[in-house]
Amino acid sequence: MGNMKTKVTDPSWKRYKELVRKEMIPYQWAVLNDNIDIKIEKERDDASIPSEKSHAIENFKIAAGLSKGEHYGWVFQDSDVYKWLEAVAYSLEDTWDEDLKTLADGVVDLIGKAQQPDGYINTYFTIKEPAKRYKRLVESHELYCAGHLLEALIAYNNATGNTKSMDIAYKLANHMDETFGPEEGKLHCADGHEEVEIGLMKLYHVTGEARYAKLADYFLKVRGDSPKVYEEQRKTDDGKGILGGGISPKPIKYNQTHLPVDMQDTAEGHAVRLVYMCTAMADVAATLKDEKLAAACKRIWRNIVDKRMYITGGIGSTVQGEAFTLDYDLPNDTMYCETCASIGLIFFAKQMLNIERNGEYADVMERALYNTALSGMALDGKHFFYVNPLEVVPNKGKLDPTKSHVKSVRPEWLGCACCPPNLARLITSIDDYIYSEVEDNILVNLFIKSEFTGDKVTIYQDSDYPKSGLVTFKVTNKEEKTARIGIRIPGWCDNYTGKFDGEDAGITNEKGYWYVNVPTGEHEVVFAMEIKPKRWYSNINVSEDTRKVAVSRGPQVYCVEEADNGRNLHCLSLNSDSEITTEWKGELLNGVNVLEAEGTRLLAIDTKAGLYTDKPNVTKVPAKIRFIPYHTWGNRGENEMRVWLFED
Amino acid sequence: MGNMKTKVTDPSWKRYKELVRKEMIPYQWAVLNDNIDIKIEKERDDASIPSEKSHAIENFKIAAGLSKGEHYGWVFQDSDVYKWLEAVAYSLEDTWDEDLKTLADGVVDLIGKAQQPDGYINTYFTIKEPAKRYKRLVESHELYCAGHLLEALIAYNNATGNTKSMDIAYKLANHMDETFGPEEGKLHCADGHEEVEIGLMKLYHVTGEARYAKLADYFLKVRGDSPKVYEEQRKTDDGKGILGGGISPKPIKYNQTHLPVDMQDTAEGHAVRLVYMCTAMADVAATLKDEKLAAACKRIWRNIVDKRMYITGGIGSTVQGEAFTLDYDLPNDTMYCETCASIGLIFFAKQMLNIERNGEYADVMERALYNTALSGMALDGKHFFYVNPLEVVPNKGKLDPTKSHVKSVRPEWLGCACCPPNLARLITSIDDYIYSEVEDNILVNLFIKSEFTGDKVTIYQDSDYPKSGLVTFKVTNKEEKTARIGIRIPGWCDNYTGKFDGEDAGITNEKGYWYVNVPTGEHEVVFAMEIKPKRWYSNINVSEDTRKVAVSRGPQVYCVEEADNGRNLHCLSLNSDSEITTEWKGELLNGVNVLEAEGTRLLAIDTKAGLYTDKPNVTKVPAKIRFIPYHTWGNRGENEMRVWLFED
Repeated sequence: MGNMKTKVTDPSWKRYKELVRKEMIPYQWAVLNDNIDIKIEKERDDASIPSEKSHAIENFKIAAGLSKGEHYGWVFQDSDVYKWLEAVAYSLEDTWDEDLKTLADGVVDLIGKAQQPDGYINTYFTIKEPAKRYKRLVESHELYCAGHLLEALIAYNNATGNTKSMDIAYKLANHMDETFGPEEGKLHCADGHEEVEIGLMKLYHVTGEARYAKLADYFLKVRGDSPKVYEEQRKTDDGKGILGGGISPKPIKYNQTHLPVDMQDTAEGHAVRLVYMCTAMADVAATLKDEKLAAACKRIWRNIVDKRMYITGGIGSTVQGEAFTLDYDLPNDTMYCETCASIGLIFFAKQMLNIERNGEYADVMERALYNTALSGMALDGKHFFYVNPLEVVPNKGKLDPTKSHVKSVRPEWLGCACCPPNLARLITSIDDYIYSEVEDNILVNLFIKSEFTGDKVTIYQDSDYPKSGLVTFKVTNKEEKTARIGIRIPGWCDNYTGKFDGEDAGITNEKGYWYVNVPTGEHEVVFAMEIKPKRWYSNINVSEDTRKVAVSRGPQVYCVEEADNGRNLHCLSLNSDSEITTEWKGELLNGVNVLEAEGTRLLAIDTKAGLYTDKPNVTKVPAKIRFIPYHTWGNRGENEMRVWLFED
Repeated sequence: MGNMKTKVTDPSWKRYKELVRKEMIPYQWAVLNDNIDIKIEKERDDASIPSEKSHAIENFKIAAGLSKGEHYGWVFQDSDVYKWLEAVAYSLEDTWDEDLKTLADGVVDLIGKAQQPDGYINTYFTIKEPAKRYKRLVESHELYCAGHLLEALIAYNNATGNTKSMDIAYKLANHMDETFGPEEGKLHCADGHEEVEIGLMKLYHVTGEARYAKLADYFLKVRGDSPKVYEEQRKTDDGKGILGGGISPKPIKYNQTHLPVDMQDTAEGHAVRLVYMCTAMADVAATLKDEKLAAACKRIWRNIVDKRMYITGGIGSTVQGEAFTLDYDLPNDTMYCETCASIGLIFFAKQMLNIERNGEYADVMERALYNTALSGMALDGKHFFYVNPLEVVPNKGKLDPTKSHVKSVRPEWLGCACCPPNLARLITSIDDYIYSEVEDNILVNLFIKSEFTGDKVTIYQDSDYPKSGLVTFKVTNKEEKTARIGIRIPGWCDNYTGKFDGEDAGITNEKGYWYVNVPTGEHEVVFAMEIKPKRWYSNINVSEDTRKVAVSRGPQVYCVEEADNGRNLHCLSLNSDSEITTEWKGELLNGVNVLEAEGTRLLAIDTKAGLYTDKPNVTKVPAKIRFIPYHTWGNRGENEMRVWLFED
């Protein structure tokens, strides 16, 4: 990619960024330092790890020799600090803040001090189990943390010019390159949790040093090469137990080590791992022109999108292993749909656009972003969901332990703090997802008011999308050669028109993009999408959604909440012929388009009837059904919520 | 109860008894001795206990000093032997078998040798953790096993006259009475798993010794008295870990220790424990005329029957803790519905009839018996379900770990072997459930061809129920006083007629019974129930069953199977006005009445469509839907099954 730069100017996204800057970053900093009295909730009943505090910064101080004590938390606790630092980097890039920069410089220094002379860095193993370094890669997260550190250091250097961060990054990457690889004497293994491959590819992209891309490629290719590698590894230490703060043994699909990655056809195992793996695979495939890897990426993508993805862009149908299950298995009330997994799906989609210019990738990116990713955060920016259900009855989450992971209001913080910092770094870097430069095309993937500055072209995108579907681009082509802009035509959009310099332009839909040739100079392109409420139906094989409908408007999936519709949402039914009206409610949920339509509600005839009756004990009454955007649910206290409604 | 005796003569129940005698008892004996090469399946993915063999008899030999080695299996492994012995006892009572008697005498001898001088008996603690005797009662199952032993020994003595069995029983019961009780110096605690209370009450009923009833009452009353008792207990040993083959810590509701038992209103925690507790409570309440306990039994009963019981008589809505969850929470595909829990519900119902003559108790007994209990066993008598789902898609059980407990064919044996022996003892003693003597009434609770011999009355019941609803009773009243026979009028039955000595008799339904006054001498009573297919609807609060119907015929709930209806059973819908026809198929599934009705099937219009479409991609075609009795499902290989169908 060239020297492109994007700046979001959209007020609603700027509000999210401000929430991150003013709320999440300071809040997370306080959490990382245990300087805040918050209620840390367990993710679910069976979560076995203590979660009373974060201790993450203290772990670094201890590893650096600046403090005395024991490591506390998960083996991957370090990554909370790295994700915080990465979010800080993007935030500083957006809005300079000298105090924050000073604070973050100090964190970089601290990380540098905790780094071992050979470049290795991980506070758990440094403090607690030095003898087990790289001996439990299936659960150790050592390279996972290293990947997040590389991403953070690169972003921080990019935003601030801090050079120490790159020193740490090189030292760490070189250490890994000397330790892992196909050569004899090196370790032949990858981390149980993919992520380092993403960090190494980023390092390659900023440095151009082939060894880093090669190492990323190696980590991918060695995966699944020998399914017994972790078993063998365990034999090299005492082989006992799991690490403190580790992950109990799982079937090999959990780690995507059941097959060599380029032979995998389906999305298997832990959903976040799978999409992180695919993100790196797609990057390596595009960068190293690896057709076989690219083909595997496409196969796995098809499997997700055609058979294993919720309408909200959520993935991971089961809490056990936070994992994919089987085709068309999409339960709405027991699923996982982790915020991080949808964020990873966005990463994967973005990388796929470098392999193939196909609007479907951006469609899915947008679906995951506007629905499950944004749902991960409360409107106050201080409460977070890990799990993003499509159907909630609060008492079931409380009293049925198989649903204990399903919360009905966002907790302040969770014992495993992966999602909130991941969300923070996504929101602060959302700029980077709006445009792609692919094979001399500038693709407009997302409709977010922003300024794009490339080597040859600048674009001012103006829009209040998704409130309306009207998008105006002021494009300046600084070169003599015609520039080619690909404006995404969303898959959900049935009617759209285009204008070029005020004249109606015919739109050809080329795999989801409208390609506009822009001559030298300044020109105006208008793209007008019809945004209206739409009904969606699941594939017949999805048993959970039979006879049901979901409603969307533009990129937003909608849901019904008890706050608007009363209890027992399972008794509601949308009339198949009812008109769905749209009304802007500026004061509701920070401003949303509310949808309403006629439907019916089942009521009991005899409210004292027992459990089973030999005649139906229900009557249908007309009911006005009100829908709100899915990502805004759970912001008005504990209540029922449902995405899929019966349709009559 | 007087000196009553019942003998089942019904061919189909005799077939079940023969299966137990010829298949289950020898098979289980081989398992208990590890003399058989079987595939022992884990109950579910997260079952942590090794289950490669039973080792149960060997544990006794080691504890008795007859063999060397280590204890293997669950802490409650002994109870497998006791339940086997109890089934043997009932079987011998039915059909004498000298060889089996000799074998069982040997087992009694072995148990006697493993009993400690003070009366204590438990192979796990004797062999492995003598220092922890009675120090981990929350998980130890010491008294649970003792309860099963008492039941077995009493039954065995009753069937064979073996006196050694009663010696062991007295020694054990007296030991417990000396160890536990309100007096200072005794232990003030009950077992984490109720059962000893049932055994002690049986000992009371056969001996009339008040101390045993008093001890049962004490074990009930001390329960929940101090919710911290188990915590305190743990402090008296090293307090570390759980026992080998123990149960990981659970919330206190799991053990019904959250409240004193007579203050409990709802069915909470582990379902088997709850119904075992209630069985003993109802027995103690009736025996000791404890109104407060009786009232608690009634409250818990109402909660189960009105809000927490599946239409199949299954209980336990969640696999985690095999437990009750909340009112109206009855998921059809993730539930537990353990065979043992329905057996326990039958025990509870039987005891409730001694508190109150109300046909509802027998209705539920029949529902649980003909559906979930019988479903626990394959038609071959050699394969068993623990978990009795109402909706199964085989691959979901295999690939979604949250459904790994849901099997689609009955395994040969399971690591935790509680259900098959429990079923064996129920089937062999089914005679005892047909009639009750309550307050000078002889109640006919179940319609099973049988001979009843009481002190004053004999009854020959003749019927092929549930194939037809015609039941003829030849009643002989040997006394001068009129005898009162209460014939149950099933709650599901809308039309019925009665005859007395050939004359039409008006039937008054008194709380579910038709009371017939029978003068001295021999008389004939005919009770004719209309048995026809019926539709059932769930309470509106059961979200899983909204818009759905279940079909029954007589006491049998029906289901649809893939073998008869093809795949994707969620696409089937029963027409609301279609006639349901009945056809006897003698060759199918050992002979069943098959039901058929017109319905529709959803088919995809575009079979290559993706996951979500903005128009419904389904068309409805007429479909003949075939139903089979629920308890016969899963006998024709792996296939989909469903009880609740959509109705249009």
